[in-house]
Amino acid sequence: MFNKRIKELRKKLLKEKLDGVLISSISNITFLTGYANFSGEEREAYLLIGKDFQYIITDGRYSEAIKRQVVHFNLFERNHENKLESLLKSLKNRINVLAVEEDDLTVLEHKFFKKHFKKLKSISLHTHRSIKSTEEITKIKKACQLGDQAFEHILKKIKVGISEKSLAWEIEKFIKDQGAQISFPSIVAFGKNSSIPHHHTGNDILGSESSSGQEGLIILLDLGVKFENYCSDMTRTVFFGKPSNKQKEIYETVLEAQKRAVSFANSKIKSGEAVKASEIDKIAREEIISKGFPTIPHSLGHGIGLEVHERPSLSPKSKDQLKLGMVFSIEPGIYIPDFGSPRSRFGEAGGVRIEDLYVYGKKGLSQLTNSSKKLLIIP
Amino acid sequence: MFNKRIKELRKKLLKEKLDGVLISSISNITFLTGYANFSGEEREAYLLIGKDFQYIITDGRYSEAIKRQVVHFNLFERNHENKLESLLKSLKNRINVLAVEEDDLTVLEHKFFKKHFKKLKSISLHTHRSIKSTEEITKIKKACQLGDQAFEHILKKIKVGISEKSLAWEIEKFIKDQGAQISFPSIVAFGKNSSIPHHHTGNDILGSESSSGQEGLIILLDLGVKFENYCSDMTRTVFFGKPSNKQKEIYETVLEAQKRAVSFANSKIKSGEAVKASEIDKIAREEIISKGFPTIPHSLGHGIGLEVHERPSLSPKSKDQLKLGMVFSIEPGIYIPDFGSPRSRFGEAGGVRIEDLYVYGKKGLSQLTNSSKKLLIIP
Repeated sequence: MFNKRIKELRKKLLKEKLDGVLISSISNITFLTGYANFSGEEREAYLLIGKDFQYIITDGRYSEAIKRQVVHFNLFERNHENKLESLLKSLKNRINVLAVEEDDLTVLEHKFFKKHFKKLKSISLHTHRSIKSTEEITKIKKACQLGDQAFEHILKKIKVGISEKSLAWEIEKFIKDQGAQISFPSIVAFGKNSSIPHHHTGNDILGSESSSGQEGLIILLDLGVKFENYCSDMTRTVFFGKPSNKQKEIYETVLEAQKRAVSFANSKIKSGEAVKASEIDKIAREEIISKGFPTIPHSLGHGIGLEVHERPSLSPKSKDQLKLGMVFSIEPGIYIPDFGSPRSRFGEAGGVRIEDLYVYGKKGLSQLTNSSKKLLIIP
Repeated sequence: MFNKRIKELRKKLLKEKLDGVLISSISNITFLTGYANFSGEEREAYLLIGKDFQYIITDGRYSEAIKRQVVHFNLFERNHENKLESLLKSLKNRINVLAVEEDDLTVLEHKFFKKHFKKLKSISLHTHRSIKSTEEITKIKKACQLGDQAFEHILKKIKVGISEKSLAWEIEKFIKDQGAQISFPSIVAFGKNSSIPHHHTGNDILGSESSSGQEGLIILLDLGVKFENYCSDMTRTVFFGKPSNKQKEIYETVLEAQKRAVSFANSKIKSGEAVKASEIDKIAREEIISKGFPTIPHSLGHGIGLEVHERPSLSPKSKDQLKLGMVFSIEPGIYIPDFGSPRSRFGEAGGVRIEDLYVYGKKGLSQLTNSSKKLLIIP
């Protein structure tokens, strides 16, 4: 699998008249080697790939692991005696034009590599990665299944007295107890916190009084699993106490926006037309605006795989086209911020988001996350 | 506190003849705003600071939180209608020379900002951050205390049948149950896995047979806590079963190397001499080499604060000088790789590392991590 990917990369080099490529992003290192343990805190490794060589460059902290696990690359262990410069000098005659990941490499690193090669150009593996293999889809599916189980598990834990943090912690424990990882810190937002699309899960506690008013309390849950390096991502919004009519309307509008986006994509696929990501975004966005609600303050969706956010981008300005084998989220949302007054014309501040992952198949989109989307009232 | 830091940054701008500075790294954004919830997965925010303006630039996912929590900055919410370009254009006449963080900004971003300003220069806040305030030291101390408690807790869990992953998970649960975070994924390495300085905690299980041989089984534990955004970092190596004489020698040599490094630093401080980080590294390194063991395959230590690894660097090539208020690790290690034969001349493959954090005080170094370093045999 990795050799096939490297072969495809070499084809790209040939086509774009590049002599070599420097891979610096952790996700692309994982994509080409299968090794996923470098940390993103600082630069711990590079790949340097040319027509007839492929090096993995790292330091003594990782070299033992790399020797065991990345046998299809030559290990260059950089240290005070064995400097990266010496490798670059030895490759000078073989590399005139080196491709780098401009969206990952820092300015400082660029200056360093520029000293050694005639020309640095830009390369991106986005398109290589956006279309998933059957094996990759199987892993994402498994991550989605674990996410569904985590959601089912967490519903039982929603009780008066529990905090957002405790719920997020319960999600994490459940996922890790299954031998998987979280793909991002779970978002748990109670009440008006749900009006912040990326609320930082905090210490708010679910109170008994929350549900005694005229409205239910919104609980927004956004969680993701990482299984064998592949990510899932799903959002559900449930109500603690009976929702008001306005809250119901918001919920149904968000759900309808998602449905319309999926139907539109399916009709395009069936008719054999190209599916523009921006068009899907527009369908969902307009459904929400047409009901008098504010537009979605984020993209409708994003590709997913080794990273939680990758290509394609489903947004108004996206130039991406959806293609067979792509996996992405469709996640419309309505967020009513607290305008300073206790209630805006939409009712209490709060937000609803519904997010699922889909894979683009021959017959249309298949939903990979399968938790119920029926409006759920707890208890 | 944040206003004081911004004031100091403005002094730096004046001194270095810079009209403005673009802050992109999450740790520096936290340092200047106190807000720590941006994710490192993609660029979610910038700070743009000049003589008489200070903007925080982010998107709709974060703007509600920023409005509440970062009141000392002007929020610029970028979206499809309100583009970053418009802000940059409005500042064009006020910024000729913009400083950027070249070790953080990507090549692509650099190209983008270069379009808007006459000149981009490099800036670094490393020196601002390396000397800690009393308040910062208090937070690091608290993180260290929690780390000590986690270590005490985990010792009770070391039993036949437990896996590396389970132990790491127990550490994480303990830390999070105290309301803190882990500052990095804990390293738990059994036996020869300890010969990999950055072993990726795996599924190896502690077997009853492990301790029945002529040697004890090494268990290396490297763990860190994040408390109110400040990190701790500590490593202890314990033995499951009675260690061989060679293992004891390795352990005592590592401990002695650490002691000598600390004593050397203290003698320099007492005599009022400048303390070069590279000299401290040398003392520990030479102690290990003098006993016939391989050199430390990593730096002797690193500064710590908002990030696990920051300045100063205690390494052979470091130009850093240790100064009053700096907090850093001293972590010598001896690692005997598995040369393919079951036993090398040092005995079974394995590694020992001992790591503590120290703060540079007026009278010398104070140790902040306080778990026992006496050679510990379990059970």
